[in-house]
Amino acid sequence: MAIAQQSSESYRLVSLRGGLGAVPGIRCSGIAAGIKKRKSDLAVIDLGADHVCASVITTNDVKAAPLLVSEEHIAKRGNAIRAIVANSGCANACTGQRGLDDARATARDAAQLLGIEASQVLVASTGVIGVPLPMELVGKGLERAVRALADGTEAALSAAEAIMTTDHVPKLEAYAFYDDGSKERRVVGGIAKGSGMIAPNLATMLAFVATDAACSRASLNAALKEAVEDTFNMISVDGDMSTNDCVYALARPGTGEATPGLRAALHAVCRELAIDMAKDGEGASKRLTVHVTGARDRAQARAVARAIVNSSLVKTALYGEDPNWGRIIAAAGSANAGLVEDAWSIALAGQPWVSRGAVEVMSEFEAHSHLEEKSIEIGVDLGVGEAEATAWGCDLSLEYVRINAHYRT
Amino acid sequence: MAIAQQSSESYRLVSLRGGLGAVPGIRCSGIAAGIKKRKSDLAVIDLGADHVCASVITTNDVKAAPLLVSEEHIAKRGNAIRAIVANSGCANACTGQRGLDDARATARDAAQLLGIEASQVLVASTGVIGVPLPMELVGKGLERAVRALADGTEAALSAAEAIMTTDHVPKLEAYAFYDDGSKERRVVGGIAKGSGMIAPNLATMLAFVATDAACSRASLNAALKEAVEDTFNMISVDGDMSTNDCVYALARPGTGEATPGLRAALHAVCRELAIDMAKDGEGASKRLTVHVTGARDRAQARAVARAIVNSSLVKTALYGEDPNWGRIIAAAGSANAGLVEDAWSIALAGQPWVSRGAVEVMSEFEAHSHLEEKSIEIGVDLGVGEAEATAWGCDLSLEYVRINAHYRT
Repeated sequence: MAIAQQSSESYRLVSLRGGLGAVPGIRCSGIAAGIKKRKSDLAVIDLGADHVCASVITTNDVKAAPLLVSEEHIAKRGNAIRAIVANSGCANACTGQRGLDDARATARDAAQLLGIEASQVLVASTGVIGVPLPMELVGKGLERAVRALADGTEAALSAAEAIMTTDHVPKLEAYAFYDDGSKERRVVGGIAKGSGMIAPNLATMLAFVATDAACSRASLNAALKEAVEDTFNMISVDGDMSTNDCVYALARPGTGEATPGLRAALHAVCRELAIDMAKDGEGASKRLTVHVTGARDRAQARAVARAIVNSSLVKTALYGEDPNWGRIIAAAGSANAGLVEDAWSIALAGQPWVSRGAVEVMSEFEAHSHLEEKSIEIGVDLGVGEAEATAWGCDLSLEYVRINAHYRT
Repeated sequence: MAIAQQSSESYRLVSLRGGLGAVPGIRCSGIAAGIKKRKSDLAVIDLGADHVCASVITTNDVKAAPLLVSEEHIAKRGNAIRAIVANSGCANACTGQRGLDDARATARDAAQLLGIEASQVLVASTGVIGVPLPMELVGKGLERAVRALADGTEAALSAAEAIMTTDHVPKLEAYAFYDDGSKERRVVGGIAKGSGMIAPNLATMLAFVATDAACSRASLNAALKEAVEDTFNMISVDGDMSTNDCVYALARPGTGEATPGLRAALHAVCRELAIDMAKDGEGASKRLTVHVTGARDRAQARAVARAIVNSSLVKTALYGEDPNWGRIIAAAGSANAGLVEDAWSIALAGQPWVSRGAVEVMSEFEAHSHLEEKSIEIGVDLGVGEAEATAWGCDLSLEYVRINAHYRT
């Protein structure tokens, strides 16, 4: 099942197929409960045992009911989470007291079916805002979803499909890891939904990542926060902005720190899921990777990389295959991260494009031919330090507008 | 020539046609110098006498050469500015030392033709970044532009046309004002270019506003900053982000404060020019006005109003005439301005749409019928205070992407 290998001094990573389905002990399902017309819309993840839980949720002032209820459950039982229920088609956001009641009832129903307590269940929703969950459909759907629980790739794929909204493909990623000197194989796997939009504000991102390795809850939280900063937050200019954004990570309860292998595998799964989202940008026809080097510090590198992948003028130029490097450097400058004149240079597809002092060193013909590729790599060296960061995005296409002008569920 | 009237306790405003051409003593011209193919691209404004100058320029780390040279001239001769030269088709940004030399040479050439000093000339550019100004064309063009200088509406219109890029219409606004108890008629007039984009980052905005009234330079600066905050900055989420953005205001030299009438007329001209830009959004099919009330303070009101007009999901929903108020409140929440749950309400076209506690009080049919209009007014009451703010925007259309994918000059 191994499809790629990476190694370092202190651990070994092996890329796997199957997402959450690659994690021993985890069962998944995804079914069509009728919340959406004719599409699967309800996923259940049964962790099979108590897990410690780490979370990163939206910074939006408006937080959907499922986020609030899940945070309550994590506060109460964050060392003994057992299951996740997630639906698409309805965000259960801006739904007031009824929304909270519905989110709690969903957790209660799932808990009853699984023989656990309601506070051991996390709930998540994505879809239209301001509409209540159709609870009769959710209740009946949960019964079928729990009966359908299974281990392996197929089941994880069903769960990943059931949380899709405007996504074109389900998103599953997994890595096995071996810590230094250890022959013990552990796995981190995850599923996610979301797409790298225009300036990806307000497209809900859900990600559920779990491992059969053990560590303390505090250590898992620290590892997740670090990973999110470099991955999910690098496909969005404003971090987590939708009312429903959440990333939950689950590990077996332990007292020790997350090992280097676990941290690296968690990071790798988050990075692959983030890239999956960037590639699946709504209506996107091209994928963009921006690698910023030579920055004063990580904060500057991140700010510049994100400003470029999120500039609508860079994104439309990319769609038009227009070698307009001025838009790239103007976007970089707009980050107000302290760009120094005559110090920066730009590369395209690994080749020097504009050297220091704004000297164009690549012909327009060659630049255009690189831009005809489906996957575009832009490098920006700020020439002032050693820090770097990578951001992922996509072009802004006619298709994006078509999708979002008439998006309903 | 008066087309509208407004009055208050301490001054009277009269809306005029003609923009800068309505200001006594000012001559304008706009000609085709050949910087662009077959379109006018070079404007000269001759103020006819020394003026005090106030400026608000981009906060982008990358500042175009003409901005830097103009700031030098304002530092040196800010009480005796005599002319402005502005071109479209080339931004003269990221052009290094050569760009600075070219901007200085432009000012020098214009000064020679007008019989003034180079440091009394402001220069401004808009267009493609990273390309040097074609100085031979600029030099020859300046001779023709100076010969073409004239007073009145037609000449101001020519100047406004010569600074257009993706603009569909030239932008000219003017107000006469009479201070309380005074029969003295003074005029504030201006021209501008720019369009209210997606999240209007990086679309250059130029605005030149002048008056035949006198005041101190410090007072003019204070009045301009206040006006820009409520007007030009309310059509853009990140304030001034392009490499070339600038607003210059010019008044007759005086020692006193700007009168209430002058301040109000300056504010009105800036507001009308800003609305002109929002209406002329690239490819826009609808105009959006967002009025936020009941805010804790002005900062909160501004932040929420700007977040809504700049949300690409709100803008695409508007294009699709989709009554999706969830996107509006999610955008409001994304401003992180402290939205309080169950306190907010939304109005559409002046009618209650969603009342406190997220209760939809307007039928979807009625909401949709309001959204079919060309001009959409959304009111958001935050329910926590007395402060308010207005922001202007437009929808995000298929046409926007088409324009920006292949924009060259």
